[in-house]
Amino acid sequence: MADTQPPAEGSGEPQQPSKNALKKAQKEAEKAAKKAAAKERELAERMKKEASDAADVSAESYGELPLTGSKGFKKTGTPRVSLSDIDEYVDKEITFRCWVENARVQSAKLAFLNLRQAYNTIQAVVAASDKLSKQMVKFAGNVSTESLLVVTGEVKRVQEPIKSATIKDYELHIVKLFIEKKADVLPLQVSDAERAIPNEGLGEDVQKEGEGEGQPIVGLNTRLNNRTIDLRAKINLAIFDIKMGVQTLFLEFLSKEKFRLINTPKILGAASEGGANVFELKYFDRKAYLAQSPQFYKQMLIAARFQRVMEIGSVFRAENSNTARHLTEFIGLDLEMEFQEDYHEVMDVLENLMLFIFKELNTRYKKETDLVRSVYHVDEFKLPESGKVPRIEFTEGIKMLREVGEELNDFDDLSTPQEKLLGKLVLEKYGSDFYTLDQFPLAIRPAYTMPSPANANLSNSYDMFMRGQEICSGAQRIHDADLLSEMMRKHDPPVDPNGPGTKDYVDSFRYGCPPHGGGGFGLERIVQFWLGLPNIRMTSLFPRDPQRVVP
Amino acid sequence: MADTQPPAEGSGEPQQPSKNALKKAQKEAEKAAKKAAAKERELAERMKKEASDAADVSAESYGELPLTGSKGFKKTGTPRVSLSDIDEYVDKEITFRCWVENARVQSAKLAFLNLRQAYNTIQAVVAASDKLSKQMVKFAGNVSTESLLVVTGEVKRVQEPIKSATIKDYELHIVKLFIEKKADVLPLQVSDAERAIPNEGLGEDVQKEGEGEGQPIVGLNTRLNNRTIDLRAKINLAIFDIKMGVQTLFLEFLSKEKFRLINTPKILGAASEGGANVFELKYFDRKAYLAQSPQFYKQMLIAARFQRVMEIGSVFRAENSNTARHLTEFIGLDLEMEFQEDYHEVMDVLENLMLFIFKELNTRYKKETDLVRSVYHVDEFKLPESGKVPRIEFTEGIKMLREVGEELNDFDDLSTPQEKLLGKLVLEKYGSDFYTLDQFPLAIRPAYTMPSPANANLSNSYDMFMRGQEICSGAQRIHDADLLSEMMRKHDPPVDPNGPGTKDYVDSFRYGCPPHGGGGFGLERIVQFWLGLPNIRMTSLFPRDPQRVVP
Repeated sequence: MADTQPPAEGSGEPQQPSKNALKKAQKEAEKAAKKAAAKERELAERMKKEASDAADVSAESYGELPLTGSKGFKKTGTPRVSLSDIDEYVDKEITFRCWVENARVQSAKLAFLNLRQAYNTIQAVVAASDKLSKQMVKFAGNVSTESLLVVTGEVKRVQEPIKSATIKDYELHIVKLFIEKKADVLPLQVSDAERAIPNEGLGEDVQKEGEGEGQPIVGLNTRLNNRTIDLRAKINLAIFDIKMGVQTLFLEFLSKEKFRLINTPKILGAASEGGANVFELKYFDRKAYLAQSPQFYKQMLIAARFQRVMEIGSVFRAENSNTARHLTEFIGLDLEMEFQEDYHEVMDVLENLMLFIFKELNTRYKKETDLVRSVYHVDEFKLPESGKVPRIEFTEGIKMLREVGEELNDFDDLSTPQEKLLGKLVLEKYGSDFYTLDQFPLAIRPAYTMPSPANANLSNSYDMFMRGQEICSGAQRIHDADLLSEMMRKHDPPVDPNGPGTKDYVDSFRYGCPPHGGGGFGLERIVQFWLGLPNIRMTSLFPRDPQRVVP
Repeated sequence: MADTQPPAEGSGEPQQPSKNALKKAQKEAEKAAKKAAAKERELAERMKKEASDAADVSAESYGELPLTGSKGFKKTGTPRVSLSDIDEYVDKEITFRCWVENARVQSAKLAFLNLRQAYNTIQAVVAASDKLSKQMVKFAGNVSTESLLVVTGEVKRVQEPIKSATIKDYELHIVKLFIEKKADVLPLQVSDAERAIPNEGLGEDVQKEGEGEGQPIVGLNTRLNNRTIDLRAKINLAIFDIKMGVQTLFLEFLSKEKFRLINTPKILGAASEGGANVFELKYFDRKAYLAQSPQFYKQMLIAARFQRVMEIGSVFRAENSNTARHLTEFIGLDLEMEFQEDYHEVMDVLENLMLFIFKELNTRYKKETDLVRSVYHVDEFKLPESGKVPRIEFTEGIKMLREVGEELNDFDDLSTPQEKLLGKLVLEKYGSDFYTLDQFPLAIRPAYTMPSPANANLSNSYDMFMRGQEICSGAQRIHDADLLSEMMRKHDPPVDPNGPGTKDYVDSFRYGCPPHGGGGFGLERIVQFWLGLPNIRMTSLFPRDPQRVVP
């Protein structure tokens, strides 16, 4: 209508005949002609398209959907299934959401797609027929990798097992295929993220990327820079399902043991543990600090008669350690409990907790564990056949190391290589990748550690190891305010028991605190060493280290 | 021997007889006499004490134990029981750890103690007999309040129910009583902490303390300053057992619904949500920020195809809000999920989650709930009889408020008093203390909120309320990078989609992100409004607000 309307009366143009007016009229005529031609072309194209659509028997069965939840989107109400339940749908038509691992046109009449949904992949066939158009085959075979689809198809049993999919016995004969959300060109291929990272260091080596045996090797930094693509790899889904598993098993076991789940503050008014390695923040008009552990608070809750407490929470360490097993932010699995007469009661709980976690990971998370370990060629995690965790005194550990040539004094701390070596010796002797070292030298432990009644140079404290690497540190804590104050003052470096970050803590032991002990596990380390992964960053969704605070 | 030995030959003293030598000999004789007298006295005292000990038939049955785990401590190996199992031990002798609620000497031959262990209290009798000395009665009756004991006694049924203890049918006839850890004079009486705080404000009013109906009223600040004593009150143990309950029920329900437990970073390289109300920290040689919510990360994990995610984690808000329902640090219960065709699928999950939590709190945590509500005279939490959570459109809510005289424009945000009023109206109309408000005005929601297809001024977003107060905010999120960028730029205040804190987030929606929505609950608010507590600080073990970062 608007196009054919005469110029409105009183339009701005003065009505004077002139050369300019003639030129103008000519121009307008030309314009009108062009317009008419364009209209004709448009009409022709529309008719052609309509004819073509009419010819396309599948016109209503494929295409790109409007944004879900937007004005143009229409609900279908069609129920969608999970590929995990595919056995229930043989020879039936199913609709489901999935994404494209790859799509390829075989011929004008045939396209194949590999479709994925969580851990499952299925081969899909789009074959031209009198019910399915060549246009649809072309469309389906050209969907970009990682695009999100809603497909409808028939589940068909196949003769030969399909090698390229996790679902080996069935393929899907596509009936409808809609792009729910198209993927742009990817900065990182998910298939590359499924392969092992080149080495365990970070620095330059990890950033080095190249062609190894014909396939691109993508370094850890590139993966972490594109983490939301990287995490789509099945190996990563498995790592984080296991990480969830460790947390839920931790809660499951300790709940049965009557531990109370607590939430302690992460913002502290004063740096409690000496002030080293602590992040400082602006707290309104004063300074505050991020908690390096829930240590003081979980003990204060024992003093508050909570009896047994556990926490899963963020822990912050401002250590400038750029190693394969340090993070500046990680999840601490902490527990603290009163005991009756002997701190070994606490060790029993800790050891049984870990045995429970390992055993249940081996059953409930076997698939995920196998998937990850197969990529990194990692040995099984050996547990003692006797069911009893090797508990070795520190002095005995020193002896074992000396016997193989290590030079160590009685009360020296172990270096990381020495810890790993001792792990190997223990594995040889006791057949266990998990063990406990008891009665550490007092001098190398925190000021709140209970001295050993047997030897004033030792203490009622312990560490736990997986594959020769520390995952837990714990001890009986001093539950007497006066002894605690004395030990703080005598500590190297000394701690002020009346300091702003310590006074409330020390005072909490003046009102009848029960004897207690506990420990703190690094969740990411448990996952790393369980799976035998070369770098702890792989076990954090968005890892934080001195160099990295994004994404 | 040493005393009677002659001086050694060649001792330093020259052998010259002189006045000095005489004086010296006299002095030494005096010394020797004194020494002998002292020895005699000592011997006499020792004999007297031995005689007295011999007379004290209970000498081995009471006293103060050396510090558990120290050199002087000796293990007994006696098994210790839980008072929860007392029914199993009628007429039997039991040993257990407990603490002293109060102790009083009735006569030289009789003392009473109220002993506590977790939620249980029992009356204990110490009666002199031929087997139990008056000395022991005196010792037991004078043990300081809150001291930790290990007692042994016989469980005896009583005729009249005991009013002053939770265990009404039995009392304990003490046989042995040892102080395991003595309590100093308390800065706060636990019995005072069992009573209601004077009012809900903080400021001056709460610090005002005085005598109300003959009993001291202790304000919230005093309680929080002495939190480890305060937390010993049963009402506090109940509050935190319920807080644990909400968390475990959250995990239980959502695990069954196949949500993945995630752990997102709390240290961010850039302030993501505009930079207001965010804590800044020193991160090595740069600045970093504390996460105000896991919002961006949980959505990025949906983009990473994690499908359904949940998190229980610390949330930090640098809001200078000194109200009864704000904390600067709290626990967020977050979830995010892809949906198929309609964001109301997400609301269904959220509502069913909360219904599950409420129902299970009513059964599994009924005792604890009743204990707390009885102190604060709080009404039962009403749930809809139909089992269907009232889901009210925002515009309908506005209408309800206008009908009772509130002046509001169509797209105005509700004030806190208006929210509370609407809560009352909903309770009257639908009989539910829990309800959902749907389709909020777009302008008052974050930039990533999906606009409503029905009305461009509204959005696919919702809040959830308990007793008229907000506990959850959620929405369908925009899962298209271009639309998201546009909405960010158009937002008031505008957000830069290419900023250091937003670019990775926006880009994660370029690679086929599914439609999704979710919500974030404030854990402390759920506990506060479930129990009807006047102040949110009561639901945080060690609360943080603009004025408080200790203990």
